[in-house]
Amino acid sequence: MKQAETKVIVPEIAKRIERVLPFLAMDVLAAAALRERKGHSVIHMEVGQPSAPAPKPAREAAKAAIDLGRIGYTEALGIAPLRERIAKHYTEQYAVPVTAESIVTTTGSSAGFVLAFLAMFNPGDRVAITAPGYPAYRSILEALDIEPVFIKLNREDGWVLTAEALEKAHAEKPLQGVLIMSPANPSGTMVNGSGLSDIADFCKKNGVWLISDEIYHGLTYGVEPETALKYNENAVVINSFSKYYCMTGWRIGWIVVPKQLVRAVETLAQNLYISAPYLSQVAAMAAFNAKDDLEKIKLGYAANRSMLLEELPKIGISDMHPVNGAFYIYANVAHLTDDSLAFCRKVLNEAGVAITPGLDFDPFDGKHHIRLSFAGSAKDCREAVSRLGTWLK
Amino acid sequence: MKQAETKVIVPEIAKRIERVLPFLAMDVLAAAALRERKGHSVIHMEVGQPSAPAPKPAREAAKAAIDLGRIGYTEALGIAPLRERIAKHYTEQYAVPVTAESIVTTTGSSAGFVLAFLAMFNPGDRVAITAPGYPAYRSILEALDIEPVFIKLNREDGWVLTAEALEKAHAEKPLQGVLIMSPANPSGTMVNGSGLSDIADFCKKNGVWLISDEIYHGLTYGVEPETALKYNENAVVINSFSKYYCMTGWRIGWIVVPKQLVRAVETLAQNLYISAPYLSQVAAMAAFNAKDDLEKIKLGYAANRSMLLEELPKIGISDMHPVNGAFYIYANVAHLTDDSLAFCRKVLNEAGVAITPGLDFDPFDGKHHIRLSFAGSAKDCREAVSRLGTWLK
Repeated sequence: MKQAETKVIVPEIAKRIERVLPFLAMDVLAAAALRERKGHSVIHMEVGQPSAPAPKPAREAAKAAIDLGRIGYTEALGIAPLRERIAKHYTEQYAVPVTAESIVTTTGSSAGFVLAFLAMFNPGDRVAITAPGYPAYRSILEALDIEPVFIKLNREDGWVLTAEALEKAHAEKPLQGVLIMSPANPSGTMVNGSGLSDIADFCKKNGVWLISDEIYHGLTYGVEPETALKYNENAVVINSFSKYYCMTGWRIGWIVVPKQLVRAVETLAQNLYISAPYLSQVAAMAAFNAKDDLEKIKLGYAANRSMLLEELPKIGISDMHPVNGAFYIYANVAHLTDDSLAFCRKVLNEAGVAITPGLDFDPFDGKHHIRLSFAGSAKDCREAVSRLGTWLK
Repeated sequence: MKQAETKVIVPEIAKRIERVLPFLAMDVLAAAALRERKGHSVIHMEVGQPSAPAPKPAREAAKAAIDLGRIGYTEALGIAPLRERIAKHYTEQYAVPVTAESIVTTTGSSAGFVLAFLAMFNPGDRVAITAPGYPAYRSILEALDIEPVFIKLNREDGWVLTAEALEKAHAEKPLQGVLIMSPANPSGTMVNGSGLSDIADFCKKNGVWLISDEIYHGLTYGVEPETALKYNENAVVINSFSKYYCMTGWRIGWIVVPKQLVRAVETLAQNLYISAPYLSQVAAMAAFNAKDDLEKIKLGYAANRSMLLEELPKIGISDMHPVNGAFYIYANVAHLTDDSLAFCRKVLNEAGVAITPGLDFDPFDGKHHIRLSFAGSAKDCREAVSRLGTWLK
């Protein structure tokens, strides 16, 4: 006699998934990789990653570590010499003293955000982020049941966040955190020293956590950026070796946290990450010795930037800011499309150029924008303009 | 005239931090590393990491990738050939068909848990975990505001979880998830096929997510483990290259998820991780070609296991299970201490052996237990017994 089948009840997916949006740049990356596996040529301008490999000292250090033996777990906060070296960077670069104890090595800036948010915010807390802005902010906050509060930036003011805008949002309903980024992704614009000081004061006055994403520091074209630590000793600074140091796929970054958060972040890191990848920690340490090479690479971005700012208008893409930092052009293409997602899909499939829809960065006016990364080679950037130009005709 | 100072309000730490406990094994690791930096000798038995380096093909593949050029971001789910290779592993090892689309490459099993929990559970959901069990389960759940429900295991039954115990907990208040691990950390014991089938049925019948941590598969001494996928097609399986494949510090693992979870997990991974480290993905793929070397390393664990099971009783540590899998001895030392944390601290500082307090694994009777990892070399294991023996006298 056949046994009665158990009725299977399929469990439900978590509700947050409705609020966590796909990272469209990563979707474009996956679509581009698929096209390449099928034999098509794709110029990559979709994600912010340098085409240059990690600097030579970093690569050599990683290879030497592989030869030395076991690639093991490290302390959750990272190996001591790397934390010390990063701390020293703050004196060298900004003349702001930071102790090694405040440095947490993370698996890219991504891990830095998760650790910081979990240490600072309770479910339902409100954290101000900008539109346009880095899309993962919103999604990580939503994933952790923290409420992202969009501050709509103004194109005419260079997409720059102000303390006034924060005061206004805070008056409507109190904020528990403010996330700033300068130079900003995708706009490339920067907050100046007095703007940063005002935002820092707003946070200090109101007991609001300040998180400063400084991942594009080092990549500015004329203006030197300041660290939020200069204006707010309780600020949490997020940084990474992915951009200036050309180490995206190594997944290595760091955060600077105030003393009272160190043990909280360590405990979270022990449980959620164990430690950042060891090879990447070793390579990152060596990357500090490659300043000359990295500055040369930056000159390449500067050249790409100038070329694009000159050439894109000639093919009909002219509405954008001049880019003070980072390596993106964020352009208004309202004259070409009302649906940047479909537009970028067509550009990938028909022109062979992978670019990212503005929808990724701005739920309000992103449908009219596209982002192009110029962290690739000069040759690729020129080829992209050529392909886009032909296709736009 | 001096300007009035702004009164600074320091923002508060998140409430969850009170509930997220330190991972004591990682605290011991940090304390041991500090002792070594001060010039002391330490035998490491505190964390579960093989002393053997990653297999040669993995190391060679990583070095070749470094020489090839940029170490970039990959698709959030991982590079296609690695996902295909992992899928094939399920046919080879368990005769259970799994498609590459169901495989998600993760930054160690740690990332696998975070991604899976966020995709499956809402805040306040209840997930059954065992005591004793892997401490990060509890802490990751707490960090994500999901409620860990301890199922107290019975030493006499080999610390093995049963469907009956789950039925009972579910009757008291419904569970939304069950997390199982076989072979188990720290106990080394295993759930047999019919036990696994019963647990899988309990989940199917009640619409409860089943998460199976299979990280110690491949490391068993006599009994072959089964995958939960054989009994529940909606199970989420967590695995990693850290243990059998000797790749701890590379931070690379994978999860197998049912079709309906793939896009949810991809979206979360894009935002929270970008991708797993590229070098580690390349090295992991090559590790599948090192079966012979890995089996030899396993023979070493088997020898360490036999030696410890024979020698530890001679120095007065005799109350433990024979260890069916993984590479830990979980011993009752109630005759030596009522405070395993203080005991392990003394053992580190006075005997120069780093071991982990049972408190990490079991809030109920952990104070009477210690865990020793025998994934180190035979020499280290013998030296540890010698140091412990001398110190215990």
